[in-house]
Formats: sequence, C-alpha cells, structure tokens
Amino acid sequence: MIRQVLQIDCPDEKGLVYRITEVLYKHGLNIVSNQEFVDATTEHFVMRTEFEGAQTPNGVLEDLNEALPETANIRRAKIGDRSMILMATKEAHCLGDLLLRYSYGEISADIDAVISNHEELRSLTEAFDIPFHYVSHKELEREAHEEQVEQVIDQYNSDYIVLAKYMRIFTPEFVTRYKRRIINIHHSFLPAFIGANPYKQAFERGVKIIGATAHFVTDDLDEGPIIAQDVLPVNHSFTAEQMAHAGRDVEKTVLAKAVKLLLEERIFIHNNRTIVFE
Amino acid sequence: MIRQVLQIDCPDEKGLVYRITEVLYKHGLNIVSNQEFVDATTEHFVMRTEFEGAQTPNGVLEDLNEALPETANIRRAKIGDRSMILMATKEAHCLGDLLLRYSYGEISADIDAVISNHEELRSLTEAFDIPFHYVSHKELEREAHEEQVEQVIDQYNSDYIVLAKYMRIFTPEFVTRYKRRIINIHHSFLPAFIGANPYKQAFERGVKIIGATAHFVTDDLDEGPIIAQDVLPVNHSFTAEQMAHAGRDVEKTVLAKAVKLLLEERIFIHNNRTIVFE
Amino acid sequence: MIRQVLQIDCPDEKGLVYRITEVLYKHGLNIVSNQEFVDATTEHFVMRTEFEGAQTPNGVLEDLNEALPETANIRRAKIGDRSMILMATKEAHCLGDLLLRYSYGEISADIDAVISNHEELRSLTEAFDIPFHYVSHKELEREAHEEQVEQVIDQYNSDYIVLAKYMRIFTPEFVTRYKRRIINIHHSFLPAFIGANPYKQAFERGVKIIGATAHFVTDDLDEGPIIAQDVLPVNHSFTAEQMAHAGRDVEKTVLAKAVKLLLEERIFIHNNRTIVFE
Amino acid sequence: MIRQVLQIDCPDEKGLVYRITEVLYKHGLNIVSNQEFVDATTEHFVMRTEFEGAQTPNGVLEDLNEALPETANIRRAKIGDRSMILMATKEAHCLGDLLLRYSYGEISADIDAVISNHEELRSLTEAFDIPFHYVSHKELEREAHEEQVEQVIDQYNSDYIVLAKYMRIFTPEFVTRYKRRIINIHHSFLPAFIGANPYKQAFERGVKIIGATAHFVTDDLDEGPIIAQDVLPVNHSFTAEQMAHAGRDVEKTVLAKAVKLLLEERIFIHNNRTIVFE
Repeated sequence: MIRQVLQIDCPDEKGLVYRITEVLYKHGLNIVSNQEFVDATTEHFVMRTEFEGAQTPNGVLEDLNEALPETANIRRAKIGDRSMILMATKEAHCLGDLLLRYSYGEISADIDAVISNHEELRSLTEAFDIPFHYVSHKELEREAHEEQVEQVIDQYNSDYIVLAKYMRIFTPEFVTRYKRRIINIHHSFLPAFIGANPYKQAFERGVKIIGATAHFVTDDLDEGPIIAQDVLPVNHSFTAEQMAHAGRDVEKTVLAKAVKLLLEERIFIHNNRTIVFE
Repeated sequence: MIRQVLQIDCPDEKGLVYRITEVLYKHGLNIVSNQEFVDATTEHFVMRTEFEGAQTPNGVLEDLNEALPETANIRRAKIGDRSMILMATKEAHCLGDLLLRYSYGEISADIDAVISNHEELRSLTEAFDIPFHYVSHKELEREAHEEQVEQVIDQYNSDYIVLAKYMRIFTPEFVTRYKRRIINIHHSFLPAFIGANPYKQAFERGVKIIGATAHFVTDDLDEGPIIAQDVLPVNHSFTAEQMAHAGRDVEKTVLAKAVKLLLEERIFIHNNRTIVFE
Repeated sequence: MIRQVLQIDCPDEKGLVYRITEVLYKHGLNIVSNQEFVDATTEHFVMRTEFEGAQTPNGVLEDLNEALPETANIRRAKIGDRSMILMATKEAHCLGDLLLRYSYGEISADIDAVISNHEELRSLTEAFDIPFHYVSHKELEREAHEEQVEQVIDQYNSDYIVLAKYMRIFTPEFVTRYKRRIINIHHSFLPAFIGANPYKQAFERGVKIIGATAHFVTDDLDEGPIIAQDVLPVNHSFTAEQMAHAGRDVEKTVLAKAVKLLLEERIFIHNNRTIVFE
Repeated sequence: MIRQVLQIDCPDEKGLVYRITEVLYKHGLNIVSNQEFVDATTEHFVMRTEFEGAQTPNGVLEDLNEALPETANIRRAKIGDRSMILMATKEAHCLGDLLLRYSYGEISADIDAVISNHEELRSLTEAFDIPFHYVSHKELEREAHEEQVEQVIDQYNSDYIVLAKYMRIFTPEFVTRYKRRIINIHHSFLPAFIGANPYKQAFERGVKIIGATAHFVTDDLDEGPIIAQDVLPVNHSFTAEQMAHAGRDVEKTVLAKAVKLLLEERIFIHNNRTIVFE
C-alpha cells in the first residue's frame, strides 16, 4: 500500500480542520492519521495528513486551495519517492549506520551516492553498492571545491543532502542553493559547544552529559532549525577522546531518526524552529 | 480561561473527524487542540478535543450525538473540576510528592482527603491541611475494612482514588464499585515482577534497570491498563534495599505523571490498553 | 552502624593504593569500599574510602600523612554529621522536595534553616518544622543584603548552603567566604543557556531536550564545577512556560542527587571539574 | 601501549586490596585502574586491575597466588587478544552493527566468522570480508545441526560466541560445551516477555516502554546472567511490528555494549548475576 502525505500550513483561523477534512472526506481519501498544531505565539496553523492509496484523486489539491486562505502552503508527497546524497569525511559510524539501515530496508528513499573529501570511506560505501565520489578539497578555494561537489549532486538530482559527519563548512551560496534540503549531525547538544571540537569543550567544562543534534543547515553555523537531539551520561573518567567514542552511538541514532522524520514528511519549519509530528 | 475537553470514541468509519469538527465549528468553539487515533486491530476511533470557554454552547452534545454512530461514547469535562482521594500505607515519597505538587498548584483537582491503614503519614498530610483518615485493618475481615474505607470515600464523593503506595489488595467488589476510577503505582516495570517485593525479585534476577508503572486497578492484580512507565539504571552494587530507595524517584515521577494525564482527560481505555494523548 | 569516609588526593605516583591500604589494614579498619581515580592529564590521584565503625582508630591520619607525599590532602568525615542551610526565592518544587526527603530520612544531614528573600515559602517550610528566615533585599545594596544573610548562616554554623532556586546572584566576596560550600541548581543543561530565563532561551532556539545542572557556585556565574546533570525531552508543542513546568521534575531530581553526593562525601573538585564517585 | 587485565575473585577477608596492591607494586606494574566490589550477601570479593605493558613480569601470578586464599580465582588477559564467532538468522541490524564497529576499529577482538542457519546475511557479512558459514537446520535433528555448528566454531577456536539475533534455542549440551562463552541479545527487558515474540506480548500488554537485554546463555531459556539492558519509550500508536522496528536501535546498542564489556574483561559472574565494572 502506498502512503501519501499532505503537509498544510497557513495563518490560523477557525474551522481549518473542518474545511480540510471536508475536502478529504468528499474525495473519499483513506486517512491513516491527522496531526495538527497551532503555534500560539505566531498564530500559525500546521497539519500533516497521511492517507493510503496509489493515486491522489483528481481535484484534491485544487479543492484544498479553494477551501484554504490564499497564503496556505500545501504540499503532497509519496513516502518512498525521495532520494538523497550522503556526505562524510573520514568517520564511518554515521555513514555506515545509514548504509546499513538502507541495506535492510529501513530507509524509505534512494541513496544515490556518497560524496567525500577523503578516500577513507570508499570501501565501506562500495561494499553496499553505492557510488562513491571523492572530491578532494586540496589546493582548492572553498568555492571551487563546492562547485565540484555541486556537479556531483546535480547529476543525481537528489532531494536531500545528509551530512553524516562531513567536517567542512559550506558557503552561504551553497546553503542557499539547497535551502531546507541539507541536514547535518552536530556532535553536541546544541546550543552548547557550537563549532569545532565539541567533545574537547565538553571535557574541559566537565559536563556530566554529552549529546548530538540533527539540524537543517543554514547560513549560521550550527544555528539552523533543530530536528532531533539526544544525550548520554558521562563522568570524570572520560577523556575527550572517550567522550567522542561514546558519542558515536548517540550521533548515529539521532541522525538516523532525523532522516526518518524527513523522509516520512513529518517536519515543518516555522521561524527557525521545527514542528515535528512523531 | 477555562479549559474543557471532549472525549469521543466509537467504531471507526470514514468522515468522523469531518463530522465532529463540523459540529464544533458551527457552534463556534475555540479549539485549542485535536488529537485522534484509530486502533487498527479493532478499527476503533478515539478523539480528544480541547477547547476554551466557560460554557459549552447549548446543543453541542446533542449535535455530536446526532452526527455520530449510536454506539459513540461522548464525554465532556472541565479541567480543574475533578476531585480525588489519596490512599497510602507508610511510605511518604509518593504521597508527599502529590501533596507538594498540589500545594504549589500543579494538580488541577481537589485533594479531598488521605486515607491510610496506618498512622505514620498523618503529620505529613496535615502539614498540607488535608484531612487524614486512619482506617486500620487490624482484626478486620477484608470486606469489613473496605466497608469502612468506602464510607470515607463516599462522604467526599471524589472522582478518583489514587493509590500512592497503598500496600493492600482490594476485593473485586471494591474494584468494581470504583471501576476505572482507581489508579495505582506499582514499583516495577510491569509485567516484570508482578506481586510482592518487586525490588527483591529484581535484585535476585540481577537486572540492570528498575522501574515503576502507573496503571488502572482491575480485578487482576497488577494486570490493569498501563498509563505510564519509566525506569532507571542500577548495577551490581545495589542491594534490594538500595534499589527500593533509588526507585522512589521514578515511582513518584511516574505516579505524578499519571495523575496529570488523568486530570487533563488525556486517557482512554480500550481492550485493557490505554490510549494516552500527551 | 556509623559510616565514615576518607578523602585523599595528591599528585600521582606508584604504590599509593598499596601504601594507603597498608595503613588502613594495619589499623584494622572495616573497609566497605574503595574508589580511586587518576586524572591522566594532570597526573593527580584521588581516592575515597568508606569504612564502618564509631571511631577512627588513633593514629590513622598520622600514619596516612607519613605514608603519603607532603602535598596530600587527607580529609575524614562521618556521614550524617553535616548540616546545611537551604535558600530559595518563590518556587516551591526544589525546596519542598528537599524538605520532603528530609522528613522521611533520605537526607543524612541536618537542615538548619531556610532563608528566603520573599515570604512565599514560609508556610511550606514551617510545615516541616524548619526555621524560616525572611531576609528581604528590598531597598538594600547587594552587600548590605548579603551581610544579613551571612548573619543568619553564621548563627547556625552550617557546613553547606544549598540554593534551591534562589534567584539572586552573590558577590565574589560572599562566594569566597563560603568557598566550595555553596551548591546551586541551574535550570538548563549548562553550558547551554547561561544566565537569566534559560527556558525562554530554549524555547526560542527550538531545542528538543531541556535539562538541569547542579554545580558549585564560584565567582563566574554558572561556571562552577558541575556535580550532576539530567535532561528530559520536549517538542514543538511546549511553550517556554510549559518547558519551565516540565523542567521542575528534572531540577528537583538533579538537586537532590547533588545534595546526596555531597553529603556522602563522594565529590572531589580538581581543576574546575568534579570527580564524583557514585 | 598494550593493556592487560587481572580479574581476581575470592571469599572476602580483611586486607585483600592491600595484599594484592603490594604484589603489584613490588613488581612495578603500571596500574591504570583498580575496581573492587564485595557482595555483601555472600561475602565474596571481586577485583579488576588494569595495567599497561607488553609483558606481565615473571612471578606476578605466583606471588598473587601465594598472597591470596587458596580458593581465589586469578585470571589475566591482554585486551585485544580475544576472538569471536557471530551467529545470526535473518535480521541484519545487530550483526551489521557489530561488523560496522569492527570495520572502524571499535571492537578489540577478531571476528573469526559468521554462522547462520539461513543465507540472507551472507552478502552483508562478505561485504566486510568476514567468512560466512551457512549451516542449515533443515531436515536435521537439533543435535545433528548443533554438531555441524560446533565443527565450524571449533575450526576457529574462538573465545566467544555472540548471538546477534540467532533465533534458535541450543541444547543444554551445547551450552555446557561453551559455558560462559555464549552471549545473546533478547528483545525485551528481561524478565518481562521471556520466550517467543516479545514485541507481540508487549503490544498486547500495552506497555509504555520496550527494551533489550544482553545476557550469558545458560540452560534455562532467557534466564542467564544479565550483562546490560536498556529501554525506549513507546505509546498506543505502535503496532507490534513498529515496536519491533523501533526496538532494533536499542537491541544493537545493548549488544554492542555487552560485547565491549566482555572484551575489556569487565564482567564477573557470581551467583547467576553479573558484576560489571564500567
């Protein structure tokens, strides 16, 4: 059975759910679940509807457009239709975990390719029969390097770019080009320990928990909308390096969760925050 | 602002949300949130709607009755209108925690009284200006003791009975009399360690996590619908007694959570399982 | 049975455990547990020994002094011998939780008194038969107010000052006077959201976890050595106020844990980080 | 630097730590950490000492033997010296996770081979360059099948057998042959939901947490000493199948943790419970 998702958001007003469900009912859609949320501070309405069926009946989107305020955003997606590019540098745990989940059918999208600025992850990637593109940044200006990366991405026409421990920062131009389509795993519970070497920072501060944050990438480093976070306890006996090792488990779990939420069309962005219907 | 809740459940059919929201919209209700769920195995529909306003407009319930199948259950409640009796034996942590939350306004209900089969908790209870009823079970048959308990409960006409570490088992007659109105905290992650002395059982089995379970009380000991559960890690250095001490924190947190869910009308019972809209 | 604790720390060198346990063995101490740690970056040795017995035999400390480097710190404490002052402003959850635990014997110290700059918490405090001192800061310079606070503290000669949601910042002079004797609960997982209104900051950043941190108070606001931290999950539906309400449970649990660690002499401070033997 | 571990256990008596550390000091061992525990109920002493150095000096074990009671067990191991066989049936998540960790150096042992009673996991295994042995159980008596499994295991002379979702039960003879050398991941928080289909049982009971348990395999199904456990929250919206999918993440993390504890020689078994020095 094919699952489809409608994502609707618009300024809040009375009767929105009634009007939306009226349209869906009249077209005989087989609704699996509805989830709504109204952001009280901005009076913004958000709704996700999941329904089953190979086709969306003709006229549903038109009727929704008519029933809703002009400013409404209405998006429809088939779950399983998306594709993505993974990017990573040298560490294998996040990339490998995604490839592994892909191999046993847990990721409802195509993984088109892996791009890396190093060669270390080639054999892992190719063991899962995924194309590996080595795009070295050596002796290249940032812009020139990104241009080569873009060429690879664009040959696949992928929907999303998932940074699975890709340790370079993008230019604003790159981020703008793939707006709302890049997600990253940061190895701290943001906003603590922004920037480089968060585990070293965590060690020096003497924290008792470390964490990981999956977020959309925006111009501001580590400041994009947060999708998912989790933590694990540490203690005085952990060196910075041991924190980094322990942190791998939470990094890979949080990134995998964010990818799943993204692919099931469960995330809305509103005012640099996410609304996530789990 | 007064918050009200509608709880609706009935066999699932197409268009239920549409029909319900149509009624609510036509009566101009100020909806704060809707939450629905369809139990796929039994095709049963469940919906919680929270709205604001001192009064429910005339005719809402009638119109809902008309719009829905005859078998539908429709309940309305004002948040803050409920009352409850607490029962406990000797341990203070769950009872004290509820009294404390009550004292700073976290519990949206009246606590009418505390009933105990011992005297230990009198001073704690009275420190919070709550009536304390000592109903000893000494030299009484179970039925005779319960009769005295019932007399206290019935003089308050409380909605709910919260067992905050009340260490006696009720007869089926008592449970039936207060059907779906008694909740209990059990000091294990059920269904592990049913019955007496769960921490001793946990110690002997050598588990690495212990937990607590809040559930409705039914005829079958520790078999009622589960409302909330949580756990905490332990290790080989914990004696059974130390597990019991550590477990207090999770017991009181889980019971307080269950009471909150109950008072905000977030729980449905269906087929001995709960649907909890958090 | 009386439990006693030896806390020893000194620069690391070979044979320290052997030399220490030799002294303890020769004096016939009934050791319950030893815990040691060597900070690899600073080569600093730390050891906690818990033993049973009403008296420490004559000469143990002298023999330890002889066996260890001159720079060694050796401290001995009887568990249960400490006393503390609690300070709070208006919120009841942390203060009430500590008073409650104290009332059922979970806190192995005396609570000498509660000091507050408001009157709100008087009745709660007095319900537990603890003296309540109202020391208003109105129309007082910070130094003048602190002087009055000091007068209360010093009349009790308490070992520790526990800030259970005391919402004022101390001068460096005050902090120095009670060096390593003041602990605080901060309502965020430090170092995220230092300073005022952390829940508002958390809401605005759109985080998916919130937390609490118990730490020693030093001159630098929220920068003292961290004792304990914990978090809980939140989502888009939480307002800043709801985060604050939810956060109470983790605040009170983390503070209670830190107090317990402090009173069982489980904490060492080294280089602005804590070593905590759980 | 090579890390070595001494594991010592014997009936408790005064001065054991002193006598042990005396021997270690006199032989000039470079101790990294000591951890001890006394089981109060059985008065049994357990100690793990980790030290660095390529060689254990001559005479250390002999001197320990002399210093300790005759009944003492003294074991020495080099970390990194062990080898293991993995067994699995059809599910890839636990096996793949271990292979992945192995590939990036997180597992300090050799993985000699994978044995399965199905062919599904061959390509995953061989992608990591590990030998895959298909030992079908079709049309074979249990004993005959196990004999073939034993032949594979014995050709590698592996230290441990890790059941990474191997869905068959061994005979007591097999378990006895590899006593204390087989660990298993069970997909529930034992002792809840022993036996087949724990997620179906969990769904039917309506629990709010699910979990996983890594344990040594003994004659009694799912009754062996527990090494590690963890849980994750679920709710009414999870079908049994969705619980099983969600449970994968905790299964693989718990099994990986148990393998790590095993390989770092951190586990003692005493009275069907484990002592785990983390």
